[in-house]
Amino acid sequence: MRLLAQSHIANNYASPTEIMAKVQVAHAPGQTIVSEYLAVSPHHALDAVELEDGRLLRGIIEGDVEIVYRAVVDVEPRAELHADLLQHEWSDLPADVLPYLMPSRFCPADKFMRFTGREFGSLSGGAKAIAIVDWIREHVDYIHGISNAETTAENTFIDRAGVCRDFTHLGITLCRAGGIPARAVAAYALALDPPDFHAVFEVWLGDGWWLVDPTGLAPVAGLIRIAHGRDAADIAFLTTSGAVTPIAITVSVAKI
Amino acid sequence: MRLLAQSHIANNYASPTEIMAKVQVAHAPGQTIVSEYLAVSPHHALDAVELEDGRLLRGIIEGDVEIVYRAVVDVEPRAELHADLLQHEWSDLPADVLPYLMPSRFCPADKFMRFTGREFGSLSGGAKAIAIVDWIREHVDYIHGISNAETTAENTFIDRAGVCRDFTHLGITLCRAGGIPARAVAAYALALDPPDFHAVFEVWLGDGWWLVDPTGLAPVAGLIRIAHGRDAADIAFLTTSGAVTPIAITVSVAKI
Amino acid sequence: MRLLAQSHIANNYASPTEIMAKVQVAHAPGQTIVSEYLAVSPHHALDAVELEDGRLLRGIIEGDVEIVYRAVVDVEPRAELHADLLQHEWSDLPADVLPYLMPSRFCPADKFMRFTGREFGSLSGGAKAIAIVDWIREHVDYIHGISNAETTAENTFIDRAGVCRDFTHLGITLCRAGGIPARAVAAYALALDPPDFHAVFEVWLGDGWWLVDPTGLAPVAGLIRIAHGRDAADIAFLTTSGAVTPIAITVSVAKI
Amino acid sequence: MRLLAQSHIANNYASPTEIMAKVQVAHAPGQTIVSEYLAVSPHHALDAVELEDGRLLRGIIEGDVEIVYRAVVDVEPRAELHADLLQHEWSDLPADVLPYLMPSRFCPADKFMRFTGREFGSLSGGAKAIAIVDWIREHVDYIHGISNAETTAENTFIDRAGVCRDFTHLGITLCRAGGIPARAVAAYALALDPPDFHAVFEVWLGDGWWLVDPTGLAPVAGLIRIAHGRDAADIAFLTTSGAVTPIAITVSVAKI
Repeated sequence: MRLLAQSHIANNYASPTEIMAKVQVAHAPGQTIVSEYLAVSPHHALDAVELEDGRLLRGIIEGDVEIVYRAVVDVEPRAELHADLLQHEWSDLPADVLPYLMPSRFCPADKFMRFTGREFGSLSGGAKAIAIVDWIREHVDYIHGISNAETTAENTFIDRAGVCRDFTHLGITLCRAGGIPARAVAAYALALDPPDFHAVFEVWLGDGWWLVDPTGLAPVAGLIRIAHGRDAADIAFLTTSGAVTPIAITVSVAKI
Repeated sequence: MRLLAQSHIANNYASPTEIMAKVQVAHAPGQTIVSEYLAVSPHHALDAVELEDGRLLRGIIEGDVEIVYRAVVDVEPRAELHADLLQHEWSDLPADVLPYLMPSRFCPADKFMRFTGREFGSLSGGAKAIAIVDWIREHVDYIHGISNAETTAENTFIDRAGVCRDFTHLGITLCRAGGIPARAVAAYALALDPPDFHAVFEVWLGDGWWLVDPTGLAPVAGLIRIAHGRDAADIAFLTTSGAVTPIAITVSVAKI
Repeated sequence: MRLLAQSHIANNYASPTEIMAKVQVAHAPGQTIVSEYLAVSPHHALDAVELEDGRLLRGIIEGDVEIVYRAVVDVEPRAELHADLLQHEWSDLPADVLPYLMPSRFCPADKFMRFTGREFGSLSGGAKAIAIVDWIREHVDYIHGISNAETTAENTFIDRAGVCRDFTHLGITLCRAGGIPARAVAAYALALDPPDFHAVFEVWLGDGWWLVDPTGLAPVAGLIRIAHGRDAADIAFLTTSGAVTPIAITVSVAKI
Repeated sequence: MRLLAQSHIANNYASPTEIMAKVQVAHAPGQTIVSEYLAVSPHHALDAVELEDGRLLRGIIEGDVEIVYRAVVDVEPRAELHADLLQHEWSDLPADVLPYLMPSRFCPADKFMRFTGREFGSLSGGAKAIAIVDWIREHVDYIHGISNAETTAENTFIDRAGVCRDFTHLGITLCRAGGIPARAVAAYALALDPPDFHAVFEVWLGDGWWLVDPTGLAPVAGLIRIAHGRDAADIAFLTTSGAVTPIAITVSVAKI
C-alpha cells in the first residue's frame, strides 16, 4: 500500500530553544520510503541523526518556525497479533528486547504485577496480549481532556479515560507486568479520525515485534512507523528545552 | 589500585523463578578484570550475556540458591567531576547519550524543570552538577527505612531522606531537568560502610561520563562498575519474575 | 450481647512526645459501657476529651509507657446494610453528613467518579453500597505487608491488596464517588483473627448510618465503636508528634 | 470598613445536577452583613443551610442557570499574624481545633514532617507560621495554568508554581506538619487583581484563628469570609454531582 504522510508543526519559540523532533518516517522493515521532503521555515540548520529507534532532527530554533514534512511510503502487509504467539522466558529473549520488560516513566509495570496476575494470570503469549487490549478497550473510554503530558498508566487505570498515548501506556504497562516485552511506537496512521500523530505499541512474541493499536481507531495495516522507545518520553514528535507556544499542527495520511 | 570484590546472594525461590542478575564486574574502560569466579549452588545453568551496559546472568532458579561472585579488578585512577566541565547543547551530544536526558521510572525529570531552573539556572556544566550534588547532601539525610523499591525522586525530594538509590535518583533527576545527561551506575564500592551494592550516577559533560557518589559515602576512586542504565529499574543486582524470600546477602570490597 | 474489649499499647517515647489516643469505647447509640478501666504506667496525666466523634486521650508522654484499657460493653443487635436502603439527594441529607461526601487524605473520591459511574452507575442506595463491597472483596486480597501508613485508596485500587484500613479506604472512596456519604470507623471487633484494632466504615442511607466490614473478617454484630472520622487520619488509635518505638500491642475482644 | 461583594456564576447543567454552593458571606465574628441579595435565574428552589463553617446553598439545577449574589458587609479591623503568638501543645487546644492538625485530601501534612523539622524546627508559634509563609513566597511562583483541581500540596512543592488555592494548601500542609492547626478559608478579597474567589488560610495560635494570605495578593484587612474547612474540598464555591459547562463567572469587591 502506497501512502502519503504529511505533518506540519508551527510553534513560537520565544527564545533560542533546543529541539529534538521525531517526525520522519523510520527506515524500518516493512516500510520503504519512496520520496520525502523536509523544510524548516524560516531556515534553521537542523542536525539529522539516524538512531536505532528512529530518525532524529535536532538543533536550536527561535521565533515563529514551522517544520513541514512529507513522505511517500510503501507499506507492506503486516501480520496481526494473534492468540497463538508464544511468550518466551527471559532467558530466550534477544538481549536488546530486555529493556522493554522494565518499568519506565509512564509505564510503572512494577506496580501492576498483582493486578495482571489476577486478571490475566491464566493466559500467556498472544492470547494474554489480546486479553489485555480487550480489557483496555472495555474499561477505558477514549476522551480528550482527561489526561495531560504527565499522565501515567497508573492515572489512566484510575481515570478510565484518555487518548492514544494513555491507551498505549496502559497496554505497555500491563504487558510488561505480565512478562511480555512491550514498547511504544509513534506512527502516522491511515484513517485516524481526527488525524494526528498516533501512539501505538508493540509486543515481542514468537520471534518478533507485533504492532497493536489499543484504541482500535486505526488499522495496523495503515501504520507508518516513526520511532519506538520505552514510552512517550522517548518518542515525542517534539521535545524542547523550554516552553513553546503552539501555533498550528496538522497531520494527514492518505492512500495514493 | 587492585581490588577484590565479592558478593553472595542467597534467596529462597519457592517456585521456578526467572531471574536476571547483574553482579559481575563490567568490561569497561578504566577497570581490568584480573580474575573472577562465579558459582551458583546448587548448580543451575545460567545464561551469561554481554550487554553494552553491563553483564547479565539469566535463567530459571528454584529452591534455596546462592550466587557467589568474586573478582580481582585493577581500577585506574579516575578524574573527579570538576566545575569547569562544559555542558553541551543537545545537538552536540553523541546519539547514544540522548536517552539519558529523558525522564524514567524513578527519575521524573519533567516535573523538576521549574525547581531546577530556579535553583541552578544560573549555572552550567560541571559547576551545575556539583551544585546539584551539594544541594542533595545539604537537604537529604541518609537514613534506612524511609524509602522502598517504589520510591521515586519525587518522593525523596519531599521525604528529605533515603539511601544511595534515592540520592542517585534525585541527582539524576535534577541533572536531567537541568539539561545534563545522567545515568545510574551499580558498583562495588571500596570503603562503603556498611558494605553493600552501591548506586551512584554519572553525568555526561565535556567529552565523557563522570562518576559521582551523591551520598559521599564512598570515594569515586574505589568504585568498580557493574552496570549502568536509566535508573534502578535497569541496574538492579537481581530482578525476578516473582516474589523471593531473602536468606542472606553479603558484599565486600577490599584492597589487595 | 455483652463483650469485654481490651487493649494494651506499649511504646518507647525517646523524648517528651505529644500523643492523642483513641482507644476508649465511644458513648454511642447501640452500645452501653457497663464498666471500664484505664491505666497509664508509669503514671502520666492524660486529658480525656469527649468529642462528637469519639473519646480522646491526650497528653505528653516520655520513656517506656503502656496504656491499658478494658471495657465491658453491652452491644445491641445491629441491623445489616441491605439492598433496599434509599440513597438521598444532597439536599435531603442532614448537614452534619455532608462532610462525608468529600474527598479526604486517604480517600480521594474525586478521582473515582468515572470508575464508579461505569461500574455501579446503574445502582443506587443499599444495592450500590453492597455492590461496592462485593467488588472490593472480589478484586482485593487481604494481605499484610503491601500497604503502609501512607497508602491511599488509589494505591490499593492498583495494588489489589491490603489490610482492613485499605479495604475501608477503598470502600469509603467508591461510595463517596457514587454519591453515598461514607466515613471510617475504628472498632473493637469480636472474632477478628488475628485480634487487632479494626477499621470498618459506615454509609448514610435511609435515615441513618449503616456499619459494614468490607473485609468480611468480623461480624458487624460484634463491633464496638471507638471513633469515626473522614478516614484513618481521624481515627488512629495513636497519633504522636514524633517517632516512637513500638514495644508491644495487644487487642482482644471476648463474649462474657 | 464597608465593602460590597458580588459574585455571578453562570453554568450550563446539561442534565439535572445536584449542587452545593458556598458563595454567601459567613455569619462570623468581625464581619456584619448589612444587606444581601441572592437570585437564581431561571428560578430554582435552593435549600439554604447555616453550617458551623459557612452557609450552604443546595438543590438540583438544570439548563443555563446563573446564581447572583451581592452583600454589603462591615468588616472590622483584623489583627495581623505576628511572630510572638504562642503555639499550644495538643493538650491545650480546643477540641474543635484538633481536626485541623490532621492531613487532608490536598494537604498531606504527614509527608512533610521531616522537611518542616529541618527547615522550621527551631521556630515555634507565630514566628514559625510567618517563616512558612515567607518560604512559600520565596520558593513558589504565582502562575495560572500549572495546577488543576487535583493538585495537592505535594505537587505544588515540586512544581514551585500555582495559584491561591495551591499556595494555601502548601501553607496549611507545612503548618500542620509543624504542629500548628491550619484550615482553608474561602473569601471575597478587596484589591485582588484579577478579582476572583480567593483562597487563604488561618492558623490557630494564642487564643484564636489568624488569617493569612500566603500569596500576598490581597490585604487581610479586606477579606470577607465565606467558609472554612480542611482544604479546598470543603470550601469550593460550587460542588456538583456531575460535569457542568461554565458560561461566565465574575467576582468583585469594592469599598463603599
